[in-house]
Amino acid sequence: MYRRFAAELIGTLLLVYVAVGVATLSFGFGVAGRSLSAGVVATALAFGLVLLVLVYAIGPISGCHVNPAVTLGVLLARRITPFDAVGYWIAQFIGGILGALLLWATFAGSPLYNRATVGLGADGWGAASMIQINMGGAFLAEVVLTALFVFAVLAMTSPVAIASVSGVAIGLALTTVHLIGIPITGTSVNPARSLGPALVVGGTALSQVWLFIVAPLVGGAVAAVMHGLIGPPTKETPLPPTEGPPPEED
Amino acid sequence: MYRRFAAELIGTLLLVYVAVGVATLSFGFGVAGRSLSAGVVATALAFGLVLLVLVYAIGPISGCHVNPAVTLGVLLARRITPFDAVGYWIAQFIGGILGALLLWATFAGSPLYNRATVGLGADGWGAASMIQINMGGAFLAEVVLTALFVFAVLAMTSPVAIASVSGVAIGLALTTVHLIGIPITGTSVNPARSLGPALVVGGTALSQVWLFIVAPLVGGAVAAVMHGLIGPPTKETPLPPTEGPPPEED
Amino acid sequence: MYRRFAAELIGTLLLVYVAVGVATLSFGFGVAGRSLSAGVVATALAFGLVLLVLVYAIGPISGCHVNPAVTLGVLLARRITPFDAVGYWIAQFIGGILGALLLWATFAGSPLYNRATVGLGADGWGAASMIQINMGGAFLAEVVLTALFVFAVLAMTSPVAIASVSGVAIGLALTTVHLIGIPITGTSVNPARSLGPALVVGGTALSQVWLFIVAPLVGGAVAAVMHGLIGPPTKETPLPPTEGPPPEED
Amino acid sequence: MYRRFAAELIGTLLLVYVAVGVATLSFGFGVAGRSLSAGVVATALAFGLVLLVLVYAIGPISGCHVNPAVTLGVLLARRITPFDAVGYWIAQFIGGILGALLLWATFAGSPLYNRATVGLGADGWGAASMIQINMGGAFLAEVVLTALFVFAVLAMTSPVAIASVSGVAIGLALTTVHLIGIPITGTSVNPARSLGPALVVGGTALSQVWLFIVAPLVGGAVAAVMHGLIGPPTKETPLPPTEGPPPEED
Repeated sequence: MYRRFAAELIGTLLLVYVAVGVATLSFGFGVAGRSLSAGVVATALAFGLVLLVLVYAIGPISGCHVNPAVTLGVLLARRITPFDAVGYWIAQFIGGILGALLLWATFAGSPLYNRATVGLGADGWGAASMIQINMGGAFLAEVVLTALFVFAVLAMTSPVAIASVSGVAIGLALTTVHLIGIPITGTSVNPARSLGPALVVGGTALSQVWLFIVAPLVGGAVAAVMHGLIGPPTKETPLPPTEGPPPEED
Repeated sequence: MYRRFAAELIGTLLLVYVAVGVATLSFGFGVAGRSLSAGVVATALAFGLVLLVLVYAIGPISGCHVNPAVTLGVLLARRITPFDAVGYWIAQFIGGILGALLLWATFAGSPLYNRATVGLGADGWGAASMIQINMGGAFLAEVVLTALFVFAVLAMTSPVAIASVSGVAIGLALTTVHLIGIPITGTSVNPARSLGPALVVGGTALSQVWLFIVAPLVGGAVAAVMHGLIGPPTKETPLPPTEGPPPEED
Repeated sequence: MYRRFAAELIGTLLLVYVAVGVATLSFGFGVAGRSLSAGVVATALAFGLVLLVLVYAIGPISGCHVNPAVTLGVLLARRITPFDAVGYWIAQFIGGILGALLLWATFAGSPLYNRATVGLGADGWGAASMIQINMGGAFLAEVVLTALFVFAVLAMTSPVAIASVSGVAIGLALTTVHLIGIPITGTSVNPARSLGPALVVGGTALSQVWLFIVAPLVGGAVAAVMHGLIGPPTKETPLPPTEGPPPEED
Repeated sequence: MYRRFAAELIGTLLLVYVAVGVATLSFGFGVAGRSLSAGVVATALAFGLVLLVLVYAIGPISGCHVNPAVTLGVLLARRITPFDAVGYWIAQFIGGILGALLLWATFAGSPLYNRATVGLGADGWGAASMIQINMGGAFLAEVVLTALFVFAVLAMTSPVAIASVSGVAIGLALTTVHLIGIPITGTSVNPARSLGPALVVGGTALSQVWLFIVAPLVGGAVAAVMHGLIGPPTKETPLPPTEGPPPEED
């Protein structure tokens, strides 16, 4: 097993555990004194800051994609091999599912937790959206927001970017898209973040999860096109910059 | 078409889509559990963080003004040619209008959305202000806040500034002015951010939009004067520092 | 007049205008839907982020003290001359008063504003404290919080500190002390921030303002002692590092 | 007495004073207008930002562990001597207790403060948890969150990390784990942060405090294992990187 695939798996696991956990605590439990905007801020900060931390912690190992849409964008920008991309995707989906299961195991310790009513931070449209967005609006929002996020990741990890702050900018880009996306769809922009909770919750969440796999991938592809058109001049080194140190066998 | 103008157009589009979207979701929809201060924090973070991300993503292409008042300040500080300034202005206003239209198209997918009652995060005074500020107070606030913001941008992009953190400081400067400005006028400090939503919403928003074009431009000019008086010693290189790599034809 | 004194005056003016403005909007106006913690977050972010921005914008000119307690700590650490310290103090108090007046002029444009009931973000104890803290508790809290803040500033501006992030750390240090201090006293830790609003509001605010001048200065002196005991090894260059480029006559 | 032990003691004191203070003000006092998520954001920011500031302020002296679980992880990663680790642990627990006492002394100045009903930000499970988590769930959450936090610290302070932003990433890692942990257990991830308040409050807080000492230490050990498996390639210099300048006798 490759170390960089392990890093993607653990990174996605931690992202889902922490950030989907905050989403569930902010909007799922029937705790008194909820405020919509405060819950949005808490959840958006959780997604962004856990990613910020992971970029610095595992970025040097795997590039810290922890998101199949990011891996697609990086693949289309030809900074990763197809073999590695497939390995990343498998690791990310497994990590997302394990993160959702570990979160479920934690909440199982609460008498207030009920999978059917509290959920697990799954994304959705229609009755599952705070503003009851329809399918078309959900698809449009996910494409635009993923395109913005992945475009930022591609720019931030290009050879001309300032490496020291790239984690800050990438993490806060994820916070940014969650600030608008949470009331619309809950915000996927990451198929691995959506699949795990949908599998645990089932029902509508599972029947709608296809959109939160397809739309972010479309957005990631759009980002790669935008990056090619208006991104910084490339002259990229042949060695992919998001790879970090050479991978090692365990 | 020049690549740097395309970057300004897309940057302004994304700024308006995301940040005006959060403003609309925080204050426009009649969702239960609203908190004034939480909505202010969410919206102020959205404006600041999307700009922070854009500064790192498109800053190397165009300098990432995405704001006609910034372009005016940069022009008066003689770091951009009049030809480029006009091009930036056109691109920014088109981007702001397209961003507002794309946001409208997204919200059109929600049965809770009504252009007349929910609005689209337009700026205003009188009945359109949370504290019912009058026109004079709105003008004063917009001039002071734009002067602070553009002064920060000019300082942060001067040759003696620390490049790695300039995006953080510029983004958080926009968050700062929104924290105070939202309850007063909604906060423009950016004519392109105000025009797009006003055109979509019409009515009072459109009849008041002149102030949110004029006052920020006055503030940008004040900032250029302040920068000349107390800004860092210049000895500027002849090559404009906010331009990034040499522009390329598409 | 010296350029660095002008920078301190304008910096303190902007700090008070923005951050005291947010405090007033978060807690003074009788707007529906207030949340204590959300108001604390908004106000603490405003104080910290406006300082963060000012550190990068005017730090290279004056060191960006914009706070008499900081200037006292820097003086005791022998990084500024007594002549300059006095000049800074005068500029800071004038700036704080002008900032409060400009804020008052802005709010005068709102029919909801009433100086007696809404106030202007003045600090206080007893009935003027959210938790009705007594005078001793207020004094203790102001000394501890100012000591933490000024200790951080002295560490962050020492020759061995990392210059690029010093503004981030200093700004967020001010946010930190406000997060705890707002419900206790409103948080001064800065005599110039307290005097201006107290002069505008008068009454209890003015009769209690002595504490918010004395306690922060005591805290600043405590910070200088702490810095001497456990601060980074000095070997300081004779040229004071917080001064930036050599001052110039206007 | 060694200067680096003094730094750990004062650092832990300030961490507990500020961040446990915000926790108490956000959730303990019966102030009207509370919002769960806003209180979570305020408290999570307080823990993270005070640590961010301390990393820059005392990091060059002691490495700024201010947390026995961090010191355990660093010890297992063989970057500190057992002698120093014991000294750090003693200093951290003393600092945590003194911080809790100083906070108690401050709140004693408020007529609204009652140690039995308001508490002092102690961690807990069952009735002491917002979601009434059981003991097993509390243990699991504390292990996972501490592992994430200490893993981030170890990665961030490794020789290949980017020093300038390590304080930002470490501080925001603590914010991250608090965003999810506060509604579950209150969030320890730091035995010294839990012991002080438990000693002041007594009762259930004291009888449950063992978990908030044991589970974070388990998490710190898990982090050291994770760091060994997927952390950045080591080739560490013999001189421990978290030690800063050579310790000096007072």
